[in-house]
Amino acid sequence: MEKITVVKVGGAVLENRSDFSAFLNRFKALKGRKILVHGGGKRANAVSEKMGIKTKIFNGRRITDAASLMVAQMVYTGIYNSEIVAQLHALGIPALGFNGADAALILAEKRLDKEKDWGFVGDIKSVDSKRLIQFMQLGFTPVFSAITHNGKGQLLNTNADSVATELAIALSKCNRVTLNYCFEEKGVLLNPEQSDKVIQMLNRPLFQSLTKGGAVTDGMLPKLENAFYALEKGVDAIYIKHFKQVDKNEAGTRIVI
Amino acid sequence: MEKITVVKVGGAVLENRSDFSAFLNRFKALKGRKILVHGGGKRANAVSEKMGIKTKIFNGRRITDAASLMVAQMVYTGIYNSEIVAQLHALGIPALGFNGADAALILAEKRLDKEKDWGFVGDIKSVDSKRLIQFMQLGFTPVFSAITHNGKGQLLNTNADSVATELAIALSKCNRVTLNYCFEEKGVLLNPEQSDKVIQMLNRPLFQSLTKGGAVTDGMLPKLENAFYALEKGVDAIYIKHFKQVDKNEAGTRIVI
Repeated sequence: MEKITVVKVGGAVLENRSDFSAFLNRFKALKGRKILVHGGGKRANAVSEKMGIKTKIFNGRRITDAASLMVAQMVYTGIYNSEIVAQLHALGIPALGFNGADAALILAEKRLDKEKDWGFVGDIKSVDSKRLIQFMQLGFTPVFSAITHNGKGQLLNTNADSVATELAIALSKCNRVTLNYCFEEKGVLLNPEQSDKVIQMLNRPLFQSLTKGGAVTDGMLPKLENAFYALEKGVDAIYIKHFKQVDKNEAGTRIVI
Repeated sequence: MEKITVVKVGGAVLENRSDFSAFLNRFKALKGRKILVHGGGKRANAVSEKMGIKTKIFNGRRITDAASLMVAQMVYTGIYNSEIVAQLHALGIPALGFNGADAALILAEKRLDKEKDWGFVGDIKSVDSKRLIQFMQLGFTPVFSAITHNGKGQLLNTNADSVATELAIALSKCNRVTLNYCFEEKGVLLNPEQSDKVIQMLNRPLFQSLTKGGAVTDGMLPKLENAFYALEKGVDAIYIKHFKQVDKNEAGTRIVI
């Protein structure tokens, strides 16, 4: 059993040059084998706008048409993945960039929803963890953009939290895996208005009462659902923490069953 | 000594869906270990235009400012590299996409020119052929976009013909390497007006007389300079051929000393 840390970092952190650099330095300080998964949604919106591509929304959720998929590929893989890999090499980390199609590491399928066609959105079916570990054994630090493929030539846009979660679950079969969701807050907040009141331990009953009380909303809800799912599937330890604390063991909010 | 074929395919081929697909099928049919290097300049121009980014030209040559570099990353790596890798997997080829920063395979430096700053244009300094062969020994077919890095965190835009040439030269130290530059013509033409009159063998004296006579111009000139340079540096065989003949041994124009 080897220890592996899977780190997800949000797009907002990458958008700010000094945060980006601070995060990569802390990621460098993180000990042991590690994998980085990144988003990039904010920049994708800006590029879409500049190219005159309208984001289609249905019931508050985004539809990934062909043009939006192209923008996701351009921003997640072309801009962020490439830049993170180049920056990590400058810090002495032998990074290797992937999207899910590379070496067929992540296989997904177009989201099945009888009520609505969500376009080129991919739900992950399987992860080739054996192959991924082979790359790590060669000494590389994998960096994933949240693009996957269906094995039939179609690329798919996949939520970056889900990519990190599924990688962590797949690797936990043969390894002791810690999963860190990193973002701009110090953890899950008891009250969204008070950024210093971080919940240290969060279990399902507390999660449910917070959700009912309206304290957990928007982006945090699916993140926590992912976290509980990952715990149930065998991931050893899960934290939601500030991006500058990625290398600190007990920082942020620890998710427990 | 193992046989490796390095294939460069031009951006115009990728721009047309049926050509793209025909090319990948012929690439699949090419026997033995192989590497694909692709361009994407035409699409980059279109994306720049859509984003309102003006291409800066000096003495007929393009200057890669920060915005143009971003477009090159987006198009070469984000769009084409990802799509080629996904398509090759669908054809049963275990493809792995790289840019020069991935695994630090290609190290470049910003072009030094006392007279003019060409921006983020990279000239290749070294190729880590040992590491590249390691990936091939794992069974992967490398697919390169023409983006490199300087090892200090800066990505650079590099001519795709040069990437293919330098990969072929580096690999030829320990392997028997064939280099195929593939494009939309049947080879080097005796007369640009007659697309059927292909020169079968082209040596330096013939090249010089054709250049003087005006038969070899524009894009073909640096391609041929690259080819002669590669031959002198130990590449075994070099062809300039039609993209549908990538798997045919003696097609197109063979470059000889």
